[in-house]
Amino acid sequence: MTVRAPGLRGGQALIGGDRRIPLYHRIHDQLRDDIESGLLKPGDRIPTEAELSARFGVSRTTVKQAIQQLVHAGLVYRVQGKGTFVGQPRIPRRLVGLISFHEEMRQRGFTPATELLEAAVVPASRHVARALGLQPGAPVLRLTRRRLADAEPIALQTHYLPGEMAELAEDPQVATGSLYEAMERRLGRRPSVGREEYTAVVVSGEDARRLGVPDHSPALAVRRYASLSDGQPVEYTESLLRADRYTLHVELKDER
Amino acid sequence: MTVRAPGLRGGQALIGGDRRIPLYHRIHDQLRDDIESGLLKPGDRIPTEAELSARFGVSRTTVKQAIQQLVHAGLVYRVQGKGTFVGQPRIPRRLVGLISFHEEMRQRGFTPATELLEAAVVPASRHVARALGLQPGAPVLRLTRRRLADAEPIALQTHYLPGEMAELAEDPQVATGSLYEAMERRLGRRPSVGREEYTAVVVSGEDARRLGVPDHSPALAVRRYASLSDGQPVEYTESLLRADRYTLHVELKDER
Repeated sequence: MTVRAPGLRGGQALIGGDRRIPLYHRIHDQLRDDIESGLLKPGDRIPTEAELSARFGVSRTTVKQAIQQLVHAGLVYRVQGKGTFVGQPRIPRRLVGLISFHEEMRQRGFTPATELLEAAVVPASRHVARALGLQPGAPVLRLTRRRLADAEPIALQTHYLPGEMAELAEDPQVATGSLYEAMERRLGRRPSVGREEYTAVVVSGEDARRLGVPDHSPALAVRRYASLSDGQPVEYTESLLRADRYTLHVELKDER
Repeated sequence: MTVRAPGLRGGQALIGGDRRIPLYHRIHDQLRDDIESGLLKPGDRIPTEAELSARFGVSRTTVKQAIQQLVHAGLVYRVQGKGTFVGQPRIPRRLVGLISFHEEMRQRGFTPATELLEAAVVPASRHVARALGLQPGAPVLRLTRRRLADAEPIALQTHYLPGEMAELAEDPQVATGSLYEAMERRLGRRPSVGREEYTAVVVSGEDARRLGVPDHSPALAVRRYASLSDGQPVEYTESLLRADRYTLHVELKDER
C-alpha cells in the first residue's frame, strides 16, 4: 500500500463555477475523478479531512459529507486510526451467458473459492415453490455458500434446488467449488437457460459480517431462476454481491 | 390503501426447524414471502412489532431487525405514527435495447415525466472526457434531470454530452421529455450502441431528497456510455435508480 501525493487539482475555479451543485458533491466528484482516472490508485490513502478542508476552503462537515458519499459508493474505505483508502476496482460481470461463479471468476483472471456455510432440506416457501415449479411446503435443498475471489469474500448465495437433488449437499465440489460442475458430473445435467433480476440493498448484521463489509454497506441483490434445456426449473438462487467489488456490465443496441 | 388481515402462517414449526439461520432472518423470509406471493399487497399495513413479537414468540429487538431488513431491501416503508406498509412492486427494466426512459416507461405501462433540474456547460473531468473521447477540460453540456413514473420520482440522471450539443439545453423536450427524441429531431441522430454498468450505492442528502427516499436508502447506480452508429461517443450518463422501484431483468443462456 503506497501513500501517494494526492492528485487533486487546485480546483477552486472549477468548484466555484457552478453554484447550483452542492459543495460536497463537487468535492466528491473531483476525488472520484482522481480515483477513476488512476491518479489515486487502489490502496492509496486519500488526503485527510483537514487537508481537504484547507485545500478547498470548505468546512470539515462539507468534506465529511463528500467522503461519506465516496464510502457509500464503495470507492473508498475507512481504516480506524489510519485514514481513508482507495478500494480495489470492481470486478466487471459481463452477461456472457449462464456460467458458474468459478467459470466466471477464472475468465476474469481471479482465483475463485467457495465455502459452504449451511446445507439443509427445508419446506419450500411460496416464492421458492413458484420459482421451482413445486407445491409450497415441498422439500427443497437449501445451500448457503460464500464465494471468494483471490481469497476475499465477494458474494453470499442461497441456492434452492428441488428436493430430489438433495444428494448434492454431500458432494465435496458443492462445498468448495462449482455447483454447476457438480450437477453436471453427478446428475448429468446443469441449468442452461435462465433469467436474473438485479436490485440494490443495504446489508447489515450477519450478511455484512459474512461479506466482510461494515454494517449499512450497499450490495447488489440478484435472483437467478434457471432451468434445464427442456424448460424444467432446477435452480433458484438469491445472491448478495459486494457493491464495492462488483459491477454488472451490459451491452445495448438500438433495436427499435 | 387497505389494512388487511395479515397473511402470516403460524410458522412456529417452520421457524424452529433450522437453528442455524438467525431468527430475524427467518421472520424476514416469511414476511417477504407473504409480500411476494401476494398475501400482503402494496399499501397493506404489515402487523405491528408487538403483534409479530407475540405471534412468533420472539423479542421486539428480533422483530425490529427483521423489519429493518425488509426496509433495507426496499420491500416495505415506514410512515411515522402510522405503521409499516408494503411498497409498490418494482418496475422491471428489461434490456430490450438502447431506448429512452420515456420509451421504456411507456412500454411498461407507466406515464413518464421528466424535470430538468440543472443545465450547464462545464469543463469535462478526466473521466467524462475519456467517456466522450474529448480532452479533459473541454466544454461539455451537463444536464441533471429527474425522471418520474406515474408522477413518482424514480430516477435521478446526470447526462454529459459533447459541448457542440449545447443547444439541446434550450430544447423544451429535453426539459420535460425524451433527450433521445430531442437529439433525433434537432440533430438528426441519436445514440444507437452503448453499454451500461450497474452497481449498488447508498443515497443520502440531496440525492435522497430528490428521489423522495429516506437517507441511507439503497439505489442502483448506472453509467451509460453511448455512441452513434459510426462509433462516435455522444452520451455519458450517470443514473441513480430507486432500488424500491426498479429491478433490472436479464435473460441468460448457456453459451459455453
